[in-house]
Amino acid sequence: MPVNPPPPAVLRSAPAAAAAVLAPLTAPIAAELLAVDQLFSRELASDLACVQTLVKYVSRFRGKMLRPVLVLLTGKAAGGTTDAHTVIATVVEMVHMATLVHDDVLDDAELRRKGATINHLRGNEAAVMLGDFLISHAFHLCSSLQSQAASRAIGHTTNVVCEGELLQIDNRNNLDLTEETYFKIIERKTAALTAVCCKLGADFAGATPAVAEAMETFGRNIGTAFQIQDDLLDLTGDVAQVGKSLGADAAKGKLTLPVIHFMRTAPVQHRELLRSLLVGNEPDKNEKIRNLIAPSASLLYASEKAKSLVASARALLATHLSPSVARTCLDELARLVVAREA
Amino acid sequence: MPVNPPPPAVLRSAPAAAAAVLAPLTAPIAAELLAVDQLFSRELASDLACVQTLVKYVSRFRGKMLRPVLVLLTGKAAGGTTDAHTVIATVVEMVHMATLVHDDVLDDAELRRKGATINHLRGNEAAVMLGDFLISHAFHLCSSLQSQAASRAIGHTTNVVCEGELLQIDNRNNLDLTEETYFKIIERKTAALTAVCCKLGADFAGATPAVAEAMETFGRNIGTAFQIQDDLLDLTGDVAQVGKSLGADAAKGKLTLPVIHFMRTAPVQHRELLRSLLVGNEPDKNEKIRNLIAPSASLLYASEKAKSLVASARALLATHLSPSVARTCLDELARLVVAREA
Repeated sequence: MPVNPPPPAVLRSAPAAAAAVLAPLTAPIAAELLAVDQLFSRELASDLACVQTLVKYVSRFRGKMLRPVLVLLTGKAAGGTTDAHTVIATVVEMVHMATLVHDDVLDDAELRRKGATINHLRGNEAAVMLGDFLISHAFHLCSSLQSQAASRAIGHTTNVVCEGELLQIDNRNNLDLTEETYFKIIERKTAALTAVCCKLGADFAGATPAVAEAMETFGRNIGTAFQIQDDLLDLTGDVAQVGKSLGADAAKGKLTLPVIHFMRTAPVQHRELLRSLLVGNEPDKNEKIRNLIAPSASLLYASEKAKSLVASARALLATHLSPSVARTCLDELARLVVAREA
Repeated sequence: MPVNPPPPAVLRSAPAAAAAVLAPLTAPIAAELLAVDQLFSRELASDLACVQTLVKYVSRFRGKMLRPVLVLLTGKAAGGTTDAHTVIATVVEMVHMATLVHDDVLDDAELRRKGATINHLRGNEAAVMLGDFLISHAFHLCSSLQSQAASRAIGHTTNVVCEGELLQIDNRNNLDLTEETYFKIIERKTAALTAVCCKLGADFAGATPAVAEAMETFGRNIGTAFQIQDDLLDLTGDVAQVGKSLGADAAKGKLTLPVIHFMRTAPVQHRELLRSLLVGNEPDKNEKIRNLIAPSASLLYASEKAKSLVASARALLATHLSPSVARTCLDELARLVVAREA
């Protein structure tokens, strides 16, 4: 009698909150996620002990596997998954891991700038190269597919992701960041990858171009909403639950949607206070920023934006996909994006 | 009447010494190099001003275009170049640029560790992402080719290059580094890329597998010799000519071939002196290391290794390729690898 496969190691080792939230949604793709997990390890195998150690270290970063889940659920809902879906799901997870590893390098570097930590150099050097190693393996794995279609789409996406990151760096400490530029940044750096996950999931399931395009928009919308929710959690979340220091975006000079809205709409005195907090270096800066913005309408504004993006995304599912367990899971996943507290 | 195209911008802007050395060898592929130059710029075009600025900045790193030259000359000598050669030559140049940009980040970081410079953070963040942008575009461009063959070969190569870099980082400050591990490092980090340049150059010119394999070995040999020559220049070169600080490898804890040989063969007292210099922090450390090793047999040992690799490489050309202008250029290029002084 066949038994259900155990959950992939990455889900077992994921932060409890994140795993608990996604677990019921991944039941229809449990076997595929296990295959992704195995392919991930197989692709990164190396004869060098120092590489093996770093690859193990990378597993610590792996969490809810949102991007593979999007590829697989979209595929399932749009006609059924194939071996190509497993490959693509593994590739996007590697790309995502690479961005996390490199983001981590940048964040470490910033902490050094503020003098909080130093001499993490050896770790940082390895992290730059480890990120490169992951990007390289992502493309290497993708080139094992018969057609160039996925390589081309993912290559285009990573071009765009890097542009988004560069635009964000360029606007670091820009207190006059507009909402337009903010959306340009997050659509490139975050939503482009979730968009291509859903597009390729549908494409490789044999969906029509119209359905694949609708799924691409679905992915872009929930990616954008996901980022806005991250912005909100940075200002309102509970440190213990979110698991990272909060108010960090503002402290790093990354303006988030509520902050941008506040700078445009709050009473002049409040704006000036925020501005001086953002450029200043008070020890309880993050807390003061949170306390200033929390009672304003700016949190609601950002929250409504995210909810509206998710509503559009869910409508696309209803319009373009036949009812199925996988479609229900995608719908629930979209809903959770703006409901999550971690 | 057709006129010769002007030399590509990268050659015009290259360091004088490097350009002067390679210029006569690139005459048979001048038109192709111009096409590479144009494709490089076209592929990296962006609608974002901040990205345009960084891409311009990257041009400063571009020098002798050794890797595109290898793809194109091998292609020409093995049956003739095609449009695919232009694409592959541009791809390998982007990969090489990415490694330079990321190496630069690592080196900057090290200077920070020693306290020499700080607060180059914004530059470093952009450099990490710019390197990623170049890698991403390299694979994106490669996926424009009809077959996956080049993507797969280049993906495998970049996997290996990253492993070489990681192995080098892991052996930083390892004063007992063996010659075996040293060769493992440089064959992966440097020679794997020159090897794949020559292999793909031949493959895409319709060469037989035997010829392509011989060209791969040719590329691996001259890449390895190139790195050993770099080691030697670090110890013996003239600062003004090489254009970077010398003795830097030792100071950074990167053991080079002459140093490894010295640690194995020099009189015990000399070895102990070198060991104490390597772990110490004297202000004129680099100069003292140079003065200690210069009169030893270790420089000759390394130099003979490099010359022997080049001799094998040149013999492969004579055995596997029919005489042609392109073959003569490849032969001369191999000779110059161990003759160069910058």
